[in-house]
Amino acid sequence: MTVDRPVEAVPFDDVPAWDETADVVVVGYGVAGASAAVEAATLGAEVLVLERTGGWGGAASMSGGFIYLGGGTPLQEALGFEDTPDEMYAFLMAAMGPGADAVKVRDYCEGSVDHYDWLVELGVRFKEEFCDEPGWVPSADQGLMYSGGENAWPLNEIARPVPRGHLPQIAEGSARTAHEEGERGGGYYLMAPLVERAEQLGARALYDVRTDCLVVDRAGTVCGVTGTRFGEPFRVRARRGVVLAAGSFIYNDDMVARFAPEALGRPGSATEMHDGHAIRMGQAIGADLGRMDGCEVAGGADPRMNVRGILVNRVGQRFIPEDTYGGRVAQAIRYKQDDVAFLVMDDAGYEEVPDMVTGGPKPRPDWVADTIAELEADMGIPAGALDATVTLYNRYAARGEDPLFHKNPTWLRPLEPPYGAFDLRHRTGGFTLGGLRTNTRSEVLHVSGRPIPGLFAAGRTASGVPVWGYASGASLGDGSFYGRRAGRSAGERR
Amino acid sequence: MTVDRPVEAVPFDDVPAWDETADVVVVGYGVAGASAAVEAATLGAEVLVLERTGGWGGAASMSGGFIYLGGGTPLQEALGFEDTPDEMYAFLMAAMGPGADAVKVRDYCEGSVDHYDWLVELGVRFKEEFCDEPGWVPSADQGLMYSGGENAWPLNEIARPVPRGHLPQIAEGSARTAHEEGERGGGYYLMAPLVERAEQLGARALYDVRTDCLVVDRAGTVCGVTGTRFGEPFRVRARRGVVLAAGSFIYNDDMVARFAPEALGRPGSATEMHDGHAIRMGQAIGADLGRMDGCEVAGGADPRMNVRGILVNRVGQRFIPEDTYGGRVAQAIRYKQDDVAFLVMDDAGYEEVPDMVTGGPKPRPDWVADTIAELEADMGIPAGALDATVTLYNRYAARGEDPLFHKNPTWLRPLEPPYGAFDLRHRTGGFTLGGLRTNTRSEVLHVSGRPIPGLFAAGRTASGVPVWGYASGASLGDGSFYGRRAGRSAGERR
Repeated sequence: MTVDRPVEAVPFDDVPAWDETADVVVVGYGVAGASAAVEAATLGAEVLVLERTGGWGGAASMSGGFIYLGGGTPLQEALGFEDTPDEMYAFLMAAMGPGADAVKVRDYCEGSVDHYDWLVELGVRFKEEFCDEPGWVPSADQGLMYSGGENAWPLNEIARPVPRGHLPQIAEGSARTAHEEGERGGGYYLMAPLVERAEQLGARALYDVRTDCLVVDRAGTVCGVTGTRFGEPFRVRARRGVVLAAGSFIYNDDMVARFAPEALGRPGSATEMHDGHAIRMGQAIGADLGRMDGCEVAGGADPRMNVRGILVNRVGQRFIPEDTYGGRVAQAIRYKQDDVAFLVMDDAGYEEVPDMVTGGPKPRPDWVADTIAELEADMGIPAGALDATVTLYNRYAARGEDPLFHKNPTWLRPLEPPYGAFDLRHRTGGFTLGGLRTNTRSEVLHVSGRPIPGLFAAGRTASGVPVWGYASGASLGDGSFYGRRAGRSAGERR
Repeated sequence: MTVDRPVEAVPFDDVPAWDETADVVVVGYGVAGASAAVEAATLGAEVLVLERTGGWGGAASMSGGFIYLGGGTPLQEALGFEDTPDEMYAFLMAAMGPGADAVKVRDYCEGSVDHYDWLVELGVRFKEEFCDEPGWVPSADQGLMYSGGENAWPLNEIARPVPRGHLPQIAEGSARTAHEEGERGGGYYLMAPLVERAEQLGARALYDVRTDCLVVDRAGTVCGVTGTRFGEPFRVRARRGVVLAAGSFIYNDDMVARFAPEALGRPGSATEMHDGHAIRMGQAIGADLGRMDGCEVAGGADPRMNVRGILVNRVGQRFIPEDTYGGRVAQAIRYKQDDVAFLVMDDAGYEEVPDMVTGGPKPRPDWVADTIAELEADMGIPAGALDATVTLYNRYAARGEDPLFHKNPTWLRPLEPPYGAFDLRHRTGGFTLGGLRTNTRSEVLHVSGRPIPGLFAAGRTASGVPVWGYASGASLGDGSFYGRRAGRSAGERR
């Protein structure tokens, strides 16, 4: 965070001259900004994107690339999965909350198939293949996968289990995994067509621009931004609107300490540009906020290992169905188990784990033992506590049952010696979900509830579809969806 | 929440006339407002308190009245407890967080003895008697009690256990309990001397005034408020400053849904005036916020019952030392156990529970059974799960040990038939802790980090000492402490 970086709004009359002028000025060239640029330019608006780094992409470009879509996308249908906006809504309201915005979630579900079509029309490709394994990413380049615990308890009782993690194909005809591709994961193959289309439509981008302040006229309308470029003052006039799409605040220690302290110093899936400054620019003119405590959380063991063992806490108790989404596991570890957990497996289960998606070797257990008594002693769990857990688990697993956490019978089998355990303590990371309060038009709302004229936000600069819970693809999904809306709302403004 | 209630700041030049003028204008006549009024008036400032209801008191007046103080108060010393600001700081940083403000907590601890003396000088009385029982309130009118889990694990390993819950004596020479006194609990006997002193010092109060908007001059200085009185516009000029002290936002469903959804529709220890409007008044001029998700949480069984049984979750697992502060128990139930918990006791333990402080009969168990197998079946806990928990608990309790949660040996004894269980599901309530960001001078901070000239806040309108965790007395404690600071800072302003 830059010391003494200004944030207070600048009166329009105080701006001596403009370095650039456009109809729609977009701050940040990640997935939300690129989507806004495409949509505004499609409407014929003159678009200028201001990006702080030397190139487009943001966190999106470096991500795995999951986009959370459903309600009956052509890909879902081609692969035999029946989905409806209602089922998707039921799932998201449960999985993205507590406190998910019903109006926004409904809107997102109703528009999801159209959004898929829009992405495909842009040139994003989804391979017609389903990955039927648990995991953070598909084992190869399959286009569809469970990415939010849809098929695990209790979510599988709330909505019909359907996969909604849509993954852009990494390269035409390639079977390479995201990892083998290096940083060019699925996210790159989502971003590249967006940026290409924006350029085709005439949107311009300026790099190395640090945007500091909104410019506001006497009526309270946002009509530009000020900042610096190569260390010199830089002022950009926006005739129709400014779109803030500069990511989360995970790299702003002061904000994280005040709003989401458990995430302090533990960023993940974000770039260092996620400094929350764009959120503060909105706050400075009375913009309201939403759910500043929420975080996407990842970390812990590979989900394909989780399902074949049991996850236990500091005192050896199970606490979650091991076959749910890895992000739900990580979130439960951080927020409900004081960031302390262990994965206990037996040798047979460990041997069954497929090769790592990364191509590297399987992680080795931190402890191994021939008895649970020995294992719990080595792990520092009170004698008898893990033993009681394993005894009860085994008793039910032998019957293919898990009345405590309802793990799918596929993964139920009594654990037998020898045993191993993995240390999952203090390994969670992620990005913040809270941000500026927006409506479904991506207008930023003042604390009075009225839209602030000329100001729009999307992606993790706004409070969106995921507010506390998460599913892989929820942020690229709502970032691109409401980025588009921001571009449309700004582009249509006169 | 009043529909269409204005919140946007009013330019000074747009105010046609002033109905009242004072040096320091205080919004809200609870503990923070009263403390601000006393301090500002002590400095010779002309003080006007605007209260929305028909009388002073706020939530404080209806509360039990605990004030969290320490560091070696005369009451602690008289009762043989050695405390230091450092021990108090270590405790509060652990118990009020995660994310407690180290600067504010240090300041509060260093000033705690002085604050005690100030209260005594005002006429607040603390009876020199220690209540050596767990509980929400003392069994009678004792002046000192553990009120935050200081003597329970893990906090007893973080700081030397010392009681810091100071309770104002209810009536001179009376042994009546807070309950028998009706609504006039300890909180009334804290508030009455404050209000009396404020009046003696010439502070005026106007009731039935709804304050809506801040008035701000061209330089951005807060110089008054507007609102309504008896349905007519009402404008008050503040020469030196405005102090916002209007309570939490627990009764504002829109804000609760966006910032602390688990608390939606479940207010406690607050008045309906806690509508968050004063927080929004600050936000409207760019004031920053702190930790909007935090909540004081109460509910569940009487702590004197908890200690004599075991608290278990949905699947029969223990999750907390049963002898810790009842608010920590309630918070763990709501946030870590999905608001589901049960208290399991045996008949012998139940018989040992003293008469209720309220004078009413002991609650009856929701389930009773001669075996744990029968009990868990009746409670809907998977067969064998509660049994495993009780077996392990008993095995260690027989040796006076609790290696899982370190409950004090005083309360450890194997549970024996017959058994009973109490349903504690969905019974938590409380008030929000988040609010305007302030410094130790109680100046409200703009998102830029600079103090907003003329604007001060305290009590639950501000983010204070308790940000997520809580101890009984933390809110009256920091409300009165930083209310005083607000009064001083505003009163000293020229």
